[in-house]
Amino acid sequence: MEGIGRIKWAIAGGYIPRRSHGSAPQKTSHETLCILNTSAKDALVQITLYFADRELVGPYRVTVAARRITHPRFNDLTDPAPIPVETDYASVIESSVPIVVQHTRLDSRQAENALFSTMAFPLP
Amino acid sequence: MEGIGRIKWAIAGGYIPRRSHGSAPQKTSHETLCILNTSAKDALVQITLYFADRELVGPYRVTVAARRITHPRFNDLTDPAPIPVETDYASVIESSVPIVVQHTRLDSRQAENALFSTMAFPLP
Amino acid sequence: MEGIGRIKWAIAGGYIPRRSHGSAPQKTSHETLCILNTSAKDALVQITLYFADRELVGPYRVTVAARRITHPRFNDLTDPAPIPVETDYASVIESSVPIVVQHTRLDSRQAENALFSTMAFPLP
Amino acid sequence: MEGIGRIKWAIAGGYIPRRSHGSAPQKTSHETLCILNTSAKDALVQITLYFADRELVGPYRVTVAARRITHPRFNDLTDPAPIPVETDYASVIESSVPIVVQHTRLDSRQAENALFSTMAFPLP
Repeated sequence: MEGIGRIKWAIAGGYIPRRSHGSAPQKTSHETLCILNTSAKDALVQITLYFADRELVGPYRVTVAARRITHPRFNDLTDPAPIPVETDYASVIESSVPIVVQHTRLDSRQAENALFSTMAFPLP
Repeated sequence: MEGIGRIKWAIAGGYIPRRSHGSAPQKTSHETLCILNTSAKDALVQITLYFADRELVGPYRVTVAARRITHPRFNDLTDPAPIPVETDYASVIESSVPIVVQHTRLDSRQAENALFSTMAFPLP
Repeated sequence: MEGIGRIKWAIAGGYIPRRSHGSAPQKTSHETLCILNTSAKDALVQITLYFADRELVGPYRVTVAARRITHPRFNDLTDPAPIPVETDYASVIESSVPIVVQHTRLDSRQAENALFSTMAFPLP
Repeated sequence: MEGIGRIKWAIAGGYIPRRSHGSAPQKTSHETLCILNTSAKDALVQITLYFADRELVGPYRVTVAARRITHPRFNDLTDPAPIPVETDYASVIESSVPIVVQHTRLDSRQAENALFSTMAFPLP
């Protein structure tokens, strides 16, 4: 069980809206990093954030147990620093074993939410 | 007619909302697995689900006839076990012949629906 | 100028909602096939549709002039047969020169529209 | 630090809605080009636009500093010519160093916004 996917991924279009409508936490405006680890080993994942006008920040560290998933919200990443809202950013995700990465945003700035999801970009 | 696509795909960002507005079944909150089989043979498809805090579940079995499609809802997969709502999951899709796989979510927790779709991630 | 992209693409998740709100044609529920032809030759494009319970239908023929785009709606494809609404389908797109293909759906069954877009799946 | 991604990308499905609801600039209907440059060199990016019934326009020039991102709106690109609203277009993005490109549309023609995002198509 080698695990499927890639060990490096990138997401260029990050943005956490500032405002939210509806009951927390489901309806809070957020971005989620969906990670699938099918391998027999835990995935040690490091996330680096890039911004428009400041130095990169990271690594943020997330562990995905063997044959498990984790769907952390970028909103909840606080170490080494919280992610500013209403600010464009991008992320590079690196893992000790192959993983699959998908990116989802829920925008609840208005009463009726908007939602998108896209696969992260797989790197060699 | 060999069939186009891949025999293995993954979707990292699964989640079925609990609530719905509007007339069933069209407006029920759901996730759909869109499968295209262009080959001259039936596609025997096995789906395995991964979760954050429990063992993987599967295989779920779906057959796509030769030169046909099927768009099963994850909501309707019940064997070997129904998929819990309001729970993060991921899926790995394996087929006996090449197929193309796309993932769609309709979120009707609010009166005005949100919708997204993304190709599944193709594996070697 | 060889043209960029691929000569064969697939979209597994087709569906044209039956109802619409708002002014036609912008707000009519629809699916669009966005095709970019950067080559110095016209692209002769053939689209074949696949269904869950009937034989495939096609080819539908679309020409994209050299260095031009076209964004036909699936709703407007009528030859050899109109595409039924509220019916799952998939499409395979084949071109005489490399093209880039993206798929968009506007769902205006409710007053507030939902929207998604995804790249089609590139084939070898 | 070579930089990750590709030096050429394409987006087939461009369209800027004409109308907007809500406070500018966040809620103005727009399309964004999200570019990530992880390399140690500035990325000199050239964008060429393709249309259905006129000659291509460009290059538009954008610089992304080393280890930075930029998320320009297509709405704000004016040199060599502003992009017409309510008009289908496509774009080809070429960079001096590898970058990652994602495409996002916010459609606020109605009070409740619709949103989508997809990776651009990577070219060799």
